[in-house]
Amino acid sequence: MDATKARLKFWGWGYETEHLTPEEVGRLEAAYAKRFGVARFEATATPRAEEIELRKPRVQPPRGLDDLCSVDHYERLLHSYGKSFFDSARVFARDFSNPPDVIASPRNEAELVATLAWCDSLDAVVIPWGGGSSVVAGVEPPRTDRPIVTVDLKRLDRVLEIDEVSQAARIQAGVYGPSLESQLKPSGLTLRHFPQSFEFSTLGGWIATRGGGHYATLHTHIDDFVESLRVVTPAGVMQSFRLPGSGAGPSPDRMFIGSEGTLGIITEAWMKLRPRPTFRAATSARFLDFYRAAEAVRAIAQAQLYPANCRLLDADEALINGAGDGGRSVLVLNFESADCPMDAALARALEIVRAHGGEYDAPAIKGEGAQRQGAAGQWRDSFLRMPYSREVLTPRGIITETFETAITWDRFAQFHAQVKAATERAIKEVTGRPGLVTCRFTHVYPDGPAPYFSWHALGDKTRLVEQAWAIKTAASDVLIKLGGTITHHHAVGRDHRRWYDRQRPALFAEALIAAKKCLDPKGMLNPGVLVDPAP
Amino acid sequence: MDATKARLKFWGWGYETEHLTPEEVGRLEAAYAKRFGVARFEATATPRAEEIELRKPRVQPPRGLDDLCSVDHYERLLHSYGKSFFDSARVFARDFSNPPDVIASPRNEAELVATLAWCDSLDAVVIPWGGGSSVVAGVEPPRTDRPIVTVDLKRLDRVLEIDEVSQAARIQAGVYGPSLESQLKPSGLTLRHFPQSFEFSTLGGWIATRGGGHYATLHTHIDDFVESLRVVTPAGVMQSFRLPGSGAGPSPDRMFIGSEGTLGIITEAWMKLRPRPTFRAATSARFLDFYRAAEAVRAIAQAQLYPANCRLLDADEALINGAGDGGRSVLVLNFESADCPMDAALARALEIVRAHGGEYDAPAIKGEGAQRQGAAGQWRDSFLRMPYSREVLTPRGIITETFETAITWDRFAQFHAQVKAATERAIKEVTGRPGLVTCRFTHVYPDGPAPYFSWHALGDKTRLVEQAWAIKTAASDVLIKLGGTITHHHAVGRDHRRWYDRQRPALFAEALIAAKKCLDPKGMLNPGVLVDPAP
Repeated sequence: MDATKARLKFWGWGYETEHLTPEEVGRLEAAYAKRFGVARFEATATPRAEEIELRKPRVQPPRGLDDLCSVDHYERLLHSYGKSFFDSARVFARDFSNPPDVIASPRNEAELVATLAWCDSLDAVVIPWGGGSSVVAGVEPPRTDRPIVTVDLKRLDRVLEIDEVSQAARIQAGVYGPSLESQLKPSGLTLRHFPQSFEFSTLGGWIATRGGGHYATLHTHIDDFVESLRVVTPAGVMQSFRLPGSGAGPSPDRMFIGSEGTLGIITEAWMKLRPRPTFRAATSARFLDFYRAAEAVRAIAQAQLYPANCRLLDADEALINGAGDGGRSVLVLNFESADCPMDAALARALEIVRAHGGEYDAPAIKGEGAQRQGAAGQWRDSFLRMPYSREVLTPRGIITETFETAITWDRFAQFHAQVKAATERAIKEVTGRPGLVTCRFTHVYPDGPAPYFSWHALGDKTRLVEQAWAIKTAASDVLIKLGGTITHHHAVGRDHRRWYDRQRPALFAEALIAAKKCLDPKGMLNPGVLVDPAP
Repeated sequence: MDATKARLKFWGWGYETEHLTPEEVGRLEAAYAKRFGVARFEATATPRAEEIELRKPRVQPPRGLDDLCSVDHYERLLHSYGKSFFDSARVFARDFSNPPDVIASPRNEAELVATLAWCDSLDAVVIPWGGGSSVVAGVEPPRTDRPIVTVDLKRLDRVLEIDEVSQAARIQAGVYGPSLESQLKPSGLTLRHFPQSFEFSTLGGWIATRGGGHYATLHTHIDDFVESLRVVTPAGVMQSFRLPGSGAGPSPDRMFIGSEGTLGIITEAWMKLRPRPTFRAATSARFLDFYRAAEAVRAIAQAQLYPANCRLLDADEALINGAGDGGRSVLVLNFESADCPMDAALARALEIVRAHGGEYDAPAIKGEGAQRQGAAGQWRDSFLRMPYSREVLTPRGIITETFETAITWDRFAQFHAQVKAATERAIKEVTGRPGLVTCRFTHVYPDGPAPYFSWHALGDKTRLVEQAWAIKTAASDVLIKLGGTITHHHAVGRDHRRWYDRQRPALFAEALIAAKKCLDPKGMLNPGVLVDPAP
């Protein structure tokens, strides 16, 4: 987040000043009009802050904390929702019926501790807030009579210490992606964790949700870059030893990584960095058959070549993103290194591509441009623009949602076919007309891919949430029945709870609840997410 | 373990039929005689099973479990200790004052569940036992009035299922290293996890202790190869989803990985495999200065070249193991791949070696011999022989012990110097004469090495345990004060508890105790290890 820019939108993605251009909107409308066979779309107006009436704050900031707490109308709107389709649909329906009562933005750990103490005294619910980019209702206040205090970490935004020898840094959790990288820049080091939400999400949010980042192979989640954590819990502060590796008992960090704000609030982390890459070797390849392309990706992953990017788009996904002709799947490949040329690795990957019937462009080697050309560049631009389209589509009744998973290769083809078919069937049943379901791989492992599905449907503006939820339910039911994870990197939040409850071993849930009761005895932190301790 | 061979020694490493040759013993004696300036050593005789009188079993196996339970004299001797110096010293002192009462070897999960139910009914203590190669008293019965049942998993020794498409296998936890690899062999796949204890340790043991394996970089611990776990706890059975990757909440597997038998008994795991390597590129390099060599290792690790082996031996360590002349540190380098030549990676690593003043042999490329030549081969042979020397040295009053840790690069040089000096000082103070402290790196990370220290001292045969403990305490106190981990891959067990208690965040301990109380309400499993729940 950049304080010199405009405010963040409470109704959509990014700053109030940033939108799709009228030309982009026109192209989107035309494409969806053609797909759904409708003449034109009627757009619900974007809500203005003034037209929304919010429930009065049920509690007021106490003296001593008043300069870090806010009951401001805009702040409460902004902190009401994350950024999923369900959030967008409720925003355009002017449904702000459950805002947080107070937004607290502590400037240091002492203020955070004081905030939690105050919340404890009120028996309040605390919602930890990073960038608010959750697409799984991870930062949404639950329905409760208890006061709700959203704790926005945005003021803990500094890189505190850079260790250039070990290539690591101690970083506050509330820092947004761009500020994190610009503070690291003078050292020549980078975290290189670039989720789609990079500009509007925070280090603490990535760690709390086990975010997936830049690397398509090897170090796929933020988990692998954590050296140590500092976490404020209602029961006190937890600080782990800073270590490159350890075998001393179950990892303390791994208990908090992915805890989604239910066990404590991450305030700092020592993170592993690396020098900025100077060598690149990149290209993209095309395949007539998606499953044949998947076999090529499997072979590349199992060859332990470790491409930084290895993203397979099915033909529809490639078409939508301007990276393909709609007839062929596209594989975007990129190798990078700060130390040595990667030409040989790319050449070996392309041998594998050829052996699986793929065709590819002449590789681009070295230089900043290497990964930005051709299909890869098109896809990347489209990827970063995509979140802005929701505030155009939702008011036109167009539902676009995504879900992502991971599965081992032996089950992949059948899994993909069944999940895609179930989603298509649900769209047809729920909306009365066919939609579109596309798939890409965001990350791949030697033992399986992480498929990411996008779907598009024309809904009924009076019941968009209900329709989208029915479709999501149908897709998730099949996905979990076939043994996929309910999330590879979007997190569980409140939206995935019912399927996470089937995935997560029952005994582990009990152990996690026991741990939570110990760290958060009053169940203050993000209730409804991950587990529900009995009162 | 190979059932066709002789019995395992209760007094030392390996099978009863395997020993150092008289020539090897002669060389060892001569070397230590020279080092400690003594004329000759008097050796205490190896204990015979018949001369040891054991406490009568305080409980007898019940009807229904009698064919899987044993109160056999030899079995109780064998299961009394692990394989540390402290264990060896007590063995030669004929101190078997606290044997387990019963050894249970269930043949399947139902029998394991029945065994735990029986133990629960007795209020017994259960010691989960893999190969018994613990060097941290992880499998030693605690002093208690409760009956002690050691559960030896050796009969759960099958590879149940191999998925050649995903390159993974479902494997029972009690399988020993050689049997595991030989069952995998027809598939062409391998786990390639080769701890020093490989021949006499089990998959379940590796997972329960976060064992360190073959790979010096990248995938250093067994942790990274686990797809899913099946664990029998006193509260029931826990089975996680089999997934190549997931971001769904804190990882259930990561709670049990490293839990050292305190939360449950691992019975099965899906493990990630890979094809056997067919390409190798290896050599060794020499450096006049250990710290300069460490800088070279840092540069190689930070170049993300990912050598399979990257083991730095200081000059004394190299000399002792026949891999060096005693004047120079030796770096053993090996790259391997099942897919493509690794010459370029080795060449780049050797550029780094040269830039740091290292000299190296002509690289050996490809073929099985590539990693077995020269210093590397010498070191490897010595490494595998080493555990057999303890039964020769302990009866001569020679204390040899090791401890291992990890630390970030920025702190490494000072850390190494202070830990080494403290250990040397302690040896002098405790034994009255100088000893020897050597160091190697077993694993390295971009942000720090895992230094492994060995030390040698001439003790007083009447108080070996007390002397060795005083030296270990001095070393560990400094190590933990300077921020190293108390163990990188040997585990915590009972021996490291007092330092682990300082390393492990207090709040995490509370959370772990809460989880344990939920999974093991009566505190049946491996009490004294990791945490002590209040009764």
